Amino acid sequence: MTPTMIRFTKMHGAGNDYIYVNTLLYNIPSPVEAAIKWSSRHKGIGSDGLVLIGRPVSADADFSMRIFNADGSEAMMCGNASRCIGKYLYEKGMTSSRTIRLETLSGIKTLNLHVCGQKVDSVTVDMLEPRFDVAGQFVPRTDAEAGGMLEAGGKLFKGTFVSMGNPHFVIFTDAEGLADVETYGRLLEHHEAFPARCNIEFAHLVEKDTLRTRVWERGSGITMACGTGACATAVAAAKLGVAGCSSKVVMDGGTLEIEWRETDNHVYLTGGAEFVFDGEIPLP
Amino acid sequence: MTPTMIRFTKMHGAGNDYIYVNTLLYNIPSPVEAAIKWSSRHKGIGSDGLVLIGRPVSADADFSMRIFNADGSEAMMCGNASRCIGKYLYEKGMTSSRTIRLETLSGIKTLNLHVCGQKVDSVTVDMLEPRFDVAGQFVPRTDAEAGGMLEAGGKLFKGTFVSMGNPHFVIFTDAEGLADVETYGRLLEHHEAFPARCNIEFAHLVEKDTLRTRVWERGSGITMACGTGACATAVAAAKLGVAGCSSKVVMDGGTLEIEWRETDNHVYLTGGAEFVFDGEIPLP
Repeated sequence: MTPTMIRFTKMHGAGNDYIYVNTLLYNIPSPVEAAIKWSSRHKGIGSDGLVLIGRPVSADADFSMRIFNADGSEAMMCGNASRCIGKYLYEKGMTSSRTIRLETLSGIKTLNLHVCGQKVDSVTVDMLEPRFDVAGQFVPRTDAEAGGMLEAGGKLFKGTFVSMGNPHFVIFTDAEGLADVETYGRLLEHHEAFPARCNIEFAHLVEKDTLRTRVWERGSGITMACGTGACATAVAAAKLGVAGCSSKVVMDGGTLEIEWRETDNHVYLTGGAEFVFDGEIPLP
Repeated sequence: MTPTMIRFTKMHGAGNDYIYVNTLLYNIPSPVEAAIKWSSRHKGIGSDGLVLIGRPVSADADFSMRIFNADGSEAMMCGNASRCIGKYLYEKGMTSSRTIRLETLSGIKTLNLHVCGQKVDSVTVDMLEPRFDVAGQFVPRTDAEAGGMLEAGGKLFKGTFVSMGNPHFVIFTDAEGLADVETYGRLLEHHEAFPARCNIEFAHLVEKDTLRTRVWERGSGITMACGTGACATAVAAAKLGVAGCSSKVVMDGGTLEIEWRETDNHVYLTGGAEFVFDGEIPLP
């Protein structure tokens, strides 16, 4: 019997790379198995995970996305992947609209495509409102002043808790301090202040409104870029007066532009999305 | 202008994965640039390198292969890649012969395909004769008895030098000693005994004629598997009486079978080869 062949597209946003499958055309009966097998860097396609594009449940959305990480776990949302979906839907002719409402596990997100010629140059994602006090994500220390002062590995880290749906702890440092992400990222992720663990950002202001940021992602370790991490960094910087309400966040894999808009208190993430290649692989 | 699209196939042998392009159909004008760009794990196809299959110069060969590593350097030969080429040529209908003479930068290698149904189960590669004294690859210590006793990082390593075209230094150890590849691999690669640097193998006999081996590849670091490294390990084991003339070498990415044949003194490497997926990408 010839195995069922699945057409896929590999794309990345700021180096965060996923395998994209249009489930209107191809059914993936075991997405967890497929994500694990296909994400393998040497024996599979190689990726940070598998993204399924499909029909939404809600009448308020145009399309849906589901994201399965390389370890098979399901992610709620990914800013980098949602930009890629915008480009995919428009350039593959699945929509002619430049505004797309995308259903995710953390609600419906609105994408605005910036089109030049027939190509999507960049995409802005409405990441909704940041929060600073989410029960179950962050337990502040008893002394309010020291709410964001955490000890890990014998060192004290002053940081700001920001939830973009998922939890983040943003630590501003000098340039040398960015390397602490390697040594202290995992310890801080598992700090008792974070009942659901936490994403950790080390950020450094390199020039006005430009933040160099390295990210320790909950469950993944150091990654090339994290959309919600870029949002959390820019929000923390604006809150502390380190930067204004619009800033660039330079991550290992690329640069994202963040605006924390005063009119609606929403955070808008803008960045590129790249096609890498199309391929065909048998179902696992 | 629409960019030229190149069809490629991703394959791996024991986890050593390359991008394969049939240059009879697709011309790659800048293979160094393509290898570097396409091999990128997050922003490219992701691979250990690019393999070009083509027409040989010599009338004694059926096909040629050229291998460009992920850093753009050209490799002389790769046992894992040559097995994949055997499977590729046969299963894509480019040859109906089960014996293929492959032109490489280190001479013409003969492949023997083991076919079951229409599929190539495994491939045996004639890796020619091992050598133990190659000027320019190994400078033995002055005391002949201690010829293979090298100091690195304050520790002494007793090993056997074997050239399979490229240089190898094989160190037999207990199971715990295999982890030394991480700490001492790079130091040994650059030891003054190796004027052209050296591949380093740490090997442990797990049962009769079965060797667990970890490899530090010259210029690449720890890799999932190395065909010539498996050959060198088996040859050193046979020479020292650690194993017989036929043994299994278990590497991080898979198992290879090695025979050092008495009749012709050649080393024969047998192992699997796997198709992963077909794809299409624009020329860089």
